[in-house]
Amino acid sequence: MIALSDIEAAARRIAPHIRRTPLLAATALREPVSTAELFLKLECLQPTGSFKVRGATNRLLLTPAEDLPRGLATASGGNHGLAVARSGALAGVPATIFVPRTISAEKLAKLRDWGATVRLEGAVWDEANVAARAFAAETGAVYIHPFGDTSVIAGQGTVALEILEALPDLDVILVAIGGGGLVAGIASVLKALKPAVRIVGIEPVGSPTLRASLEKGAVTRLDAVTTRVATMACGKTEEIVFEIARGAISEIVLVEDEEMLEAARWLWREMGLAADLSGAAALAAIRSGRLDLPPGAKVCALVCGAGSEGIQA
Amino acid sequence: MIALSDIEAAARRIAPHIRRTPLLAATALREPVSTAELFLKLECLQPTGSFKVRGATNRLLLTPAEDLPRGLATASGGNHGLAVARSGALAGVPATIFVPRTISAEKLAKLRDWGATVRLEGAVWDEANVAARAFAAETGAVYIHPFGDTSVIAGQGTVALEILEALPDLDVILVAIGGGGLVAGIASVLKALKPAVRIVGIEPVGSPTLRASLEKGAVTRLDAVTTRVATMACGKTEEIVFEIARGAISEIVLVEDEEMLEAARWLWREMGLAADLSGAAALAAIRSGRLDLPPGAKVCALVCGAGSEGIQA
Repeated sequence: MIALSDIEAAARRIAPHIRRTPLLAATALREPVSTAELFLKLECLQPTGSFKVRGATNRLLLTPAEDLPRGLATASGGNHGLAVARSGALAGVPATIFVPRTISAEKLAKLRDWGATVRLEGAVWDEANVAARAFAAETGAVYIHPFGDTSVIAGQGTVALEILEALPDLDVILVAIGGGGLVAGIASVLKALKPAVRIVGIEPVGSPTLRASLEKGAVTRLDAVTTRVATMACGKTEEIVFEIARGAISEIVLVEDEEMLEAARWLWREMGLAADLSGAAALAAIRSGRLDLPPGAKVCALVCGAGSEGIQA
Repeated sequence: MIALSDIEAAARRIAPHIRRTPLLAATALREPVSTAELFLKLECLQPTGSFKVRGATNRLLLTPAEDLPRGLATASGGNHGLAVARSGALAGVPATIFVPRTISAEKLAKLRDWGATVRLEGAVWDEANVAARAFAAETGAVYIHPFGDTSVIAGQGTVALEILEALPDLDVILVAIGGGGLVAGIASVLKALKPAVRIVGIEPVGSPTLRASLEKGAVTRLDAVTTRVATMACGKTEEIVFEIARGAISEIVLVEDEEMLEAARWLWREMGLAADLSGAAALAAIRSGRLDLPPGAKVCALVCGAGSEGIQA
């Protein structure tokens, strides 16, 4: 469990290095998606293009200076890797990012643009992560877990503080899940400040990690991860995420990769937003009709990552 | 001249049909562009992807219902055409958009997606506009001028009301100029509410319409329009724009097409924003170093249109 005070401290700590992103009311639509009142939290406008800078920066700033010279390492489907690459740049130390071969060409180019050393390892995140941990153990690099780390989760949770300030009467929040760090951070804040808010997680049909664990009542490894959305592909979550999620998440909705692509196109056509597929996952859940949103309910969807998938279509 | 009360009335009139777009502080940059404090007004997040919905919608709502059945017509480099196409959709009447052959494939596809009839006419906007006026005269369609129309200018000016509300101590505002309707609307508001604000217009080197007119002291037709940025290409502004601009614009900075493309790439890399080249023009002016911005000055750059030019690079 993560204390609200830790998340509030994270918010103060990372403030100089992140952006307070806009919460945009999705009004004046050509093709409305819901009778609820929809708000988009534009985390795609963060440095590196996703909320991941919140957690990675918090972790960086909590790392003793003497541990840093051997650099940073992590495994990522893209967005957390970018955030760690940027943390390396902030600290002036090298960053080595292990990525699965399913990573998008766009994320790969961005990682290299940040000056990170990129290592392609394995078919899914979990395999890349084994290699990243081995690398860190060997080289003494600081390993930053994308979700199984309380400082990272506390950093991600800061987004919920901003959402509640901008929209105190929030009813429902929709959060994409890869490993679950974001939803765990958000749940930690909402449990403390506004426990009535309904928290809906969204996972790919081809990677229902947290849903499988919640159904089983224990952290479970998926037999197979088949989504091609690398930023949401994860065979097994971590205990800390599971423990927080278990008491807080109202439901998990599964969406197809193709539905995320269609939602990314919708975000571009309707809102002028360039979201990656995980960034479009919350919208995909709404558009799927699998979610029952009361008319007039104030619903916040996190547009958690930037990408051009919806444009190049 | 346009009265502040007309612009305030426009804001109330169009409110249900447009978005109150975010004003985003451009902080936590990897590659800072200025020692001034930079804010981005995200008009790229409007319906149809630009501020143009403000003016077109105001004009639509001021048009008597009995004039509408024969449809709407205009000439546009892209964004105003989209806004008129959407006005047609709102009113349930056809829209015919005349565009120059220099229009981008992306704008063309978007226009067709809105169900507009698109007519390619001429090499520059001015030629397309002759055809649009002839069409309107022939068919009785309501012709909506992109900038030489007080209702359109009043609509565009509403963006300045929002900017001042969000940033009352604004020092400098940077506005891209095609025909000049946006800058005329903004100038009308600032002259009335905050005349000390420095208004900087940005034109392409290959289409310095308003600068030529201001230098000559009268509306002037350019010998040639050579920019390939169709949304900012205009051989001759209109008297109403010139009269407002003359007393209000502090300076006009010229930028190369290539500088706008680089600025669009910067907006994508740094901010996760997908801007078209006119949307990146204000950033291009800052990055060019041709603008003297005092350290700490509060500077607002309008990201006036959405596009994928900076991403597909």
